[in-house]
Amino acid sequence: MPSAAGLAAINQWVDANSDRLREELFALLRIPSVSTLPEHKDDVVRAANYVADALETAGLENVEIIPTERHPLIYADWLHAPGKPTILCYGHYDVQPPDPLDLWETPPFEPTVRNGNIYARGAVDDKGQMYTHIKACEALRALHGTFPVNLKFLIEGEEEIGGASIAKYVPEHKEKLRADVALVSDTALYAEGIPTLCIGLRGLVYMEVEAAGPARDLHSGLYGGAAPNAIFGLVELLAKAKNSDGVVQIPGFYSDVKEPASAELESWESLPFNAGEYLANEVGSTAITGEPGRTVFEKTWSRPTLEVHGIAGGFTGAGSKTVIPAKALAKVSFRLVPDQDPEKIIAAFRTWIKSNTPAGIQAEVRVLGAGPGLLVNPDHPAISVAADVFSESLGRKTVFTRSGGSIPIVGDFARHLGIPTILMGFGLPDDGLHSPNEKFKLANYYQGIATVAYFLERYGG
Amino acid sequence: MPSAAGLAAINQWVDANSDRLREELFALLRIPSVSTLPEHKDDVVRAANYVADALETAGLENVEIIPTERHPLIYADWLHAPGKPTILCYGHYDVQPPDPLDLWETPPFEPTVRNGNIYARGAVDDKGQMYTHIKACEALRALHGTFPVNLKFLIEGEEEIGGASIAKYVPEHKEKLRADVALVSDTALYAEGIPTLCIGLRGLVYMEVEAAGPARDLHSGLYGGAAPNAIFGLVELLAKAKNSDGVVQIPGFYSDVKEPASAELESWESLPFNAGEYLANEVGSTAITGEPGRTVFEKTWSRPTLEVHGIAGGFTGAGSKTVIPAKALAKVSFRLVPDQDPEKIIAAFRTWIKSNTPAGIQAEVRVLGAGPGLLVNPDHPAISVAADVFSESLGRKTVFTRSGGSIPIVGDFARHLGIPTILMGFGLPDDGLHSPNEKFKLANYYQGIATVAYFLERYGG
Repeated sequence: MPSAAGLAAINQWVDANSDRLREELFALLRIPSVSTLPEHKDDVVRAANYVADALETAGLENVEIIPTERHPLIYADWLHAPGKPTILCYGHYDVQPPDPLDLWETPPFEPTVRNGNIYARGAVDDKGQMYTHIKACEALRALHGTFPVNLKFLIEGEEEIGGASIAKYVPEHKEKLRADVALVSDTALYAEGIPTLCIGLRGLVYMEVEAAGPARDLHSGLYGGAAPNAIFGLVELLAKAKNSDGVVQIPGFYSDVKEPASAELESWESLPFNAGEYLANEVGSTAITGEPGRTVFEKTWSRPTLEVHGIAGGFTGAGSKTVIPAKALAKVSFRLVPDQDPEKIIAAFRTWIKSNTPAGIQAEVRVLGAGPGLLVNPDHPAISVAADVFSESLGRKTVFTRSGGSIPIVGDFARHLGIPTILMGFGLPDDGLHSPNEKFKLANYYQGIATVAYFLERYGG
Repeated sequence: MPSAAGLAAINQWVDANSDRLREELFALLRIPSVSTLPEHKDDVVRAANYVADALETAGLENVEIIPTERHPLIYADWLHAPGKPTILCYGHYDVQPPDPLDLWETPPFEPTVRNGNIYARGAVDDKGQMYTHIKACEALRALHGTFPVNLKFLIEGEEEIGGASIAKYVPEHKEKLRADVALVSDTALYAEGIPTLCIGLRGLVYMEVEAAGPARDLHSGLYGGAAPNAIFGLVELLAKAKNSDGVVQIPGFYSDVKEPASAELESWESLPFNAGEYLANEVGSTAITGEPGRTVFEKTWSRPTLEVHGIAGGFTGAGSKTVIPAKALAKVSFRLVPDQDPEKIIAAFRTWIKSNTPAGIQAEVRVLGAGPGLLVNPDHPAISVAADVFSESLGRKTVFTRSGGSIPIVGDFARHLGIPTILMGFGLPDDGLHSPNEKFKLANYYQGIATVAYFLERYGG
């Protein structure tokens, strides 16, 4: 067994290799692996190959590119540390679409460093963070010639589109994936410099709602006042589904929602939070909205919600066209909290749509993806080690938070492999995930590599 | 003065020239003169040239193509019938955009005859109908060698985009345009075979409403529940502006709305109307909607309304993207009835938007065009002659109706030239104006030419 290198030695290795570590990530960021757009299918395959090669280079074995119905999974392992724990490292190499393109200061797939940040689609979500795991292994290999723990990697290319293939793969490969704990870096520090372990995630039900009115677009002069309007029908439904206070109006929607324990609520209150800065620098609006009497932590971490992500219908070109549109479409989702059952919510929504669709309108609900929310026990040994390591690496006490986002795979690991997940993320709250000018602080990329390496070392012994 | 040729002689001439009359219209329909799309600017000019040449050929004089800030106006006259009335013929050679293209059975700018109908964008609105005036002149010229009345033509290329240039031109050229009556063919028969004079039109206020929420698209997991959503803000505004019964909620919106005289209401009740057929064949939906307790005639002819023509915002590509959108846009319009003042309605809407915009949302209203509704006196001598002629031509008593559509120029002729307008249209209710597969019944095109020629002859004495 190798001697522990210690945090200082790891940091030294990262420093000495910093240019190469940055350039290798840039090469991955240049591949536009947008999983939702069919025209990028080949790019997604290219990104998978690049990640597989990086695993091989880092010293992982049994590297597989596993074909699926859509985008490939990547598996790799190293199992030569008998008696030591096994870590399952998860990440994703697919990214969100980059549009609206005109709002990017530099092109989304030409990574650029400005003000100490890497700007690129996928910089922080999740290519840059996923890559910290691989480079952490490389660091340990370089320093020790071997690994302090057993390692398994499972990296997917469908995280941004619901993760159907990995959701199928995990329950079918329970033995192959057996591990003591999973490690996921796809979240953010609570704030710059504050080591943060996320122990709760919201679930997601993503849907399309399509409304049909007249059989064809009609002249709004000749028929306006007597004919149903597909856009108005959709608009009425959406406005009725959530009231102006942000309270979802679907019967039973809140039935299974539990309030967080008072200890958790108190710890949230102790987190530094400046509503004015949050509003100005993160949201960029004139008001924090949502359920009255709830804190922002509750609204985004422990309360479910309904959002509209996109809407389209009728004529929206330059100038004017006076049609009563025949069709309209909205992309909507529910964010769910632990104990809400996605299937129950979908059924309740379908029932509600049926009884609330306006006269003359046909509404159809199509579910594109669904997964529950979940909570991890902060007293689990691996979480404790991670918290200690993170504190040491960043020089400040680790805080426990939740995230309002959804990482469905964490639920699958819990359900099928029976293991908790360490959500150790290195992003920052203003990184602009899914937005133009997505960024990842370069220092956090390096800190991520060092912290993950140090965690593996410490957890191994 | 030439002797009257009579309806039979005119019909004979139309029959003898039917192939040529059809082919010449087809050549005009092949020009995609979509006035709202900048990429069709040259096509609009081509269409203007084609119409000007046709006027010249028909025997009109002083043919001018008048440049404007956007698309050219066409003027022509023939003023050699002293003591006879002067008719101002109006039409438009621009068309609506053809989208959605995939719903056309044959391409929109490749006119095709099927089942006795001409299918093409602009077939009935208004190229085909405008062309009946020109060909009616040609018929009279061929039969008499001269014209029985004084003639002026004013044809525009901006009718589908608000008609700004003609609205400016008319008040600046009152003397040039002086006439006893205007003739417009841009409406439909009440039903197949029923000669119809339209004596009322609704006005139009066309607007864009843009909602802004967060400064940029946000991750809906991280911010959902606390951040304003631009689409939801827009959706809330629209759903609040008109209730589910179709009643507009803007204060003062109905203040100046007058009920039609009881004689007019009674005559509407005598019109053949089958609600089931209207719903199935025209609207193509499961319900007639709109204000409770109103007939379809009232809803579409004598009641104002609010429609959404298009809506866009956020991500609407294939698959899923979980953003809280920063911006959303809707195209909306009010249809106004006589006595409603467009400026007053715009001001009321702006005030209402200001006080009803949800927290965290900025809403902007941009007016793209505005014109009032109006009514014509059915006892005017020119209208009486037109009614008699129309009855004789179609062999059935002429009915007086209104239209829910808007022809702003009719209001301008009344206001600036002090003349009434004969709205003598030859379309059919199911012609699909502004829709895919717009059509014009070929027999009605020929009947239109003959009826207009006969009207000019009879009105000339």
